Amino acid sequence: MSYNKAPSITAETINPRVKIIRYAPCGEIVKHAARLEQEIEENPASIPFQEIIYCNLGNPQVLGQPPLTFFREVLSLCDNPALMDRDEARALFSPCSIRRARRILNSIPSKDTGGYTDCRGIKCLRQVVADGITARDGFPSTADDIFLTDGATSAINLMMQILIRSHEDGILSPLPEYPLYSASIILHGGTMVPYNLTEDNGWGLEIFEVKRCLEEARSAGLTVRAMVVINPGNPTGQVLSVTNQEEIVEFCRKEGLVILADEVYQENIYAENKKFHSFKKVARSLAYDENDLTLVSLHSVSMSYGESGRRGGYMEVSGVAANVKDQIYKVASLTLCPNIAGQILVSLAMDPPKLGDESFESFDKEKEQIRSSFCKRAKTLEKAFSGLEGVTCNKLEGALYLFPRLHLPSAAIRAADFEGVSPDIFYAHRLLDATGIAVVPGSGFHQASGTIHIRCTILPDERKIEAMVARLRAFHKAFMNEFRGSQQVMNDLRR
Amino acid sequence: MSYNKAPSITAETINPRVKIIRYAPCGEIVKHAARLEQEIEENPASIPFQEIIYCNLGNPQVLGQPPLTFFREVLSLCDNPALMDRDEARALFSPCSIRRARRILNSIPSKDTGGYTDCRGIKCLRQVVADGITARDGFPSTADDIFLTDGATSAINLMMQILIRSHEDGILSPLPEYPLYSASIILHGGTMVPYNLTEDNGWGLEIFEVKRCLEEARSAGLTVRAMVVINPGNPTGQVLSVTNQEEIVEFCRKEGLVILADEVYQENIYAENKKFHSFKKVARSLAYDENDLTLVSLHSVSMSYGESGRRGGYMEVSGVAANVKDQIYKVASLTLCPNIAGQILVSLAMDPPKLGDESFESFDKEKEQIRSSFCKRAKTLEKAFSGLEGVTCNKLEGALYLFPRLHLPSAAIRAADFEGVSPDIFYAHRLLDATGIAVVPGSGFHQASGTIHIRCTILPDERKIEAMVARLRAFHKAFMNEFRGSQQVMNDLRR
Repeated sequence: MSYNKAPSITAETINPRVKIIRYAPCGEIVKHAARLEQEIEENPASIPFQEIIYCNLGNPQVLGQPPLTFFREVLSLCDNPALMDRDEARALFSPCSIRRARRILNSIPSKDTGGYTDCRGIKCLRQVVADGITARDGFPSTADDIFLTDGATSAINLMMQILIRSHEDGILSPLPEYPLYSASIILHGGTMVPYNLTEDNGWGLEIFEVKRCLEEARSAGLTVRAMVVINPGNPTGQVLSVTNQEEIVEFCRKEGLVILADEVYQENIYAENKKFHSFKKVARSLAYDENDLTLVSLHSVSMSYGESGRRGGYMEVSGVAANVKDQIYKVASLTLCPNIAGQILVSLAMDPPKLGDESFESFDKEKEQIRSSFCKRAKTLEKAFSGLEGVTCNKLEGALYLFPRLHLPSAAIRAADFEGVSPDIFYAHRLLDATGIAVVPGSGFHQASGTIHIRCTILPDERKIEAMVARLRAFHKAFMNEFRGSQQVMNDLRR
Repeated sequence: MSYNKAPSITAETINPRVKIIRYAPCGEIVKHAARLEQEIEENPASIPFQEIIYCNLGNPQVLGQPPLTFFREVLSLCDNPALMDRDEARALFSPCSIRRARRILNSIPSKDTGGYTDCRGIKCLRQVVADGITARDGFPSTADDIFLTDGATSAINLMMQILIRSHEDGILSPLPEYPLYSASIILHGGTMVPYNLTEDNGWGLEIFEVKRCLEEARSAGLTVRAMVVINPGNPTGQVLSVTNQEEIVEFCRKEGLVILADEVYQENIYAENKKFHSFKKVARSLAYDENDLTLVSLHSVSMSYGESGRRGGYMEVSGVAANVKDQIYKVASLTLCPNIAGQILVSLAMDPPKLGDESFESFDKEKEQIRSSFCKRAKTLEKAFSGLEGVTCNKLEGALYLFPRLHLPSAAIRAADFEGVSPDIFYAHRLLDATGIAVVPGSGFHQASGTIHIRCTILPDERKIEAMVARLRAFHKAFMNEFRGSQQVMNDLRR
């Protein structure tokens, strides 16, 4: 036969777009942490700490945040409906959990949670989500615009699939970035058009900068299709002002850009003078309706509620013609349906127990405990980072991350260079090796060139955070002394 | 400003690959069924039946198949671990469900099911799956080769993302096809290289035909990267013989093709002389190891266990270098992790209760009931279709579908043509309108040109199947008479 064999699957022959993407929150630092964890288990004496504190990922429950009882009661009843018919259930479940589970099961044609659902999710649950959005925003939302999804991530991938035709299609996306965006844009064959957030202005979004980037991209021949806005910000933690959001809405409307509003941290707001406003609410308040602007809003149960591994989320798509929605439906149908536990949880998040429901008080108390604990931990860590020599730390307004900037001695930068890594990676690995604290190097988020950051979640267990801060302080001091010292030595040698 | 605005999102400006894909099992026929369902609710007198029988999708539980008690008990305990500490739980759950749930929770570092897990799934659950494969095949499997996934679908998409670099990369895939394959190949920018199954030979896979297609594709400049084999077949229901599988293994090894073995129907075998053999087992039996061949095997809890909406599955990747596995890991990490309920279920499916476990007998009985009911329903429907005038029906060896071939009067074909649809679509819509039975037209599976098929699942509730068959018979008879009649009229006119 004269034809060449197809190459078998090797690192050289896989899709090159896969090779260039990076997803730092689950990248090298986590693999190294897992290796250390293994060593702790096998030879604890060889490691100077007893456990890894995973501050790499917004993954609250893994670090000890308790789940909301109401969520879990409803979930276990829906998974095992036989429980509801048993007398014992009355001792184990709150009446309103039982009522809610019954209502959910009755809304499913087969009265059970096993089968595929509509690929957008169970209709009644989509209605619950739409009603929740209506109540939140004061502007109507309809079940027809709601797609339940396996977390926000699958919604992002779905929209990139819809929007991107070729590498000549660009998506405006913030820097520092949440790296899923660049990865998803690249994997789907498009071009990321980055715009910079301004660190000196509390990581603010400046519309003239976005405009500059848009025009530059257009000059280069790109068709820019959408603008990603993450509010509250990841990894930057800022909460946009309404005025700023209005500018963005005006800009996207004028320029014909879809707004991809990543609003997964909408419940995670700590600054007292800040409040969450959805982009849809802002647009409707400006009297822009479906005909003026296409808006896609994402939310999930992963961050505010910590049910990350459940993969529950929704996407609200407004200002999209029916024939486009049909195409979105078709792409959604390729994965058959979002998982049912995730669907149920997102409906509970958008329709929590109300005053008068038996679970109302306990639910509210548990939720408030989580929120105030987030606040407390954010403040503790913000103070800790700000107090470190050569470190400036953004004030955390929302989301789950601090993104402190490090000013390291030039000898540390040279040492990193000597090891062939960037200074943030060098610092993060040293920190992990010395303390067990796993943070993500800022280069994983495309920090501005010449700057050094790390991203650290605010999620360590309250009971462990003081000890963690002490370890962080001791490490940082030793690190700075080591490289200041070596700098001194080098300076001495030069003299 | 001199640049054009980006076009807003319209059916004309979305990704053209999205527009050309089709996914018939959730396509027009289902939308029409949903409209009819709405009408039944609003104006029952206007519709000649009281319910839609959804035979379009392998979705067992939606049609009344009960879930396995053990699965649901473990799931509800893992969702709500507080239950296990309560005395009442002993009355509500089998001791081995409690033990299993405890074991699963203890294998998760946070002892709870809320957080993100490793993007491949919880390590211990991957080990359980690997052990299950080892026991099934008699050849070793390792947790390192296992990726838990949100159903088999997400594994297919993931592998296409890895394999496809451009439209010059081809994937061999069977016709009639399960349309997810063509959709996924197209969406990821590749080219499907179809090979035909032979209807006259019980939908057998003939290796010379595959070879012909491979060579033709190579002549056309394609690099063929993988061969998809669905065994048992969808929509064709055949179970490959070991000899046939050996030929496929030899062929793929020689030609350097990855085998993508879709083995999701491995538990659904009805022919007494047939047995499931995984491609890995066949390859290892031929003494081919990891160095000889790359094999990807997919399985899920959707089909055999009916837990479709849970989205639980696994992918076993063998014969892949560590640096390739790192890249697969990276793509998997972009969706953070498979949903936890799905992870748990797939581990239960691969490690069911054993002799001596309290749930063993009831589990076995429930499973056997499902299996024998599948057999019974398959036989009833096979007989029903075979008994229809002008219909030949494959013998169902495995999977969940019949794919009968219709020989319709030429007047029916002309009538379809007059309505601008293909005859299979014409027939399926007439069937749905007259009886409420929703099947998928064969063109949705790329049936051979000039043939007319429909795909019908074997899943209607046993209690309803006789009535359904009676309706099907009456419809078909009337349909044939109508068009035979009109043919007669036309012939009369011509005379």
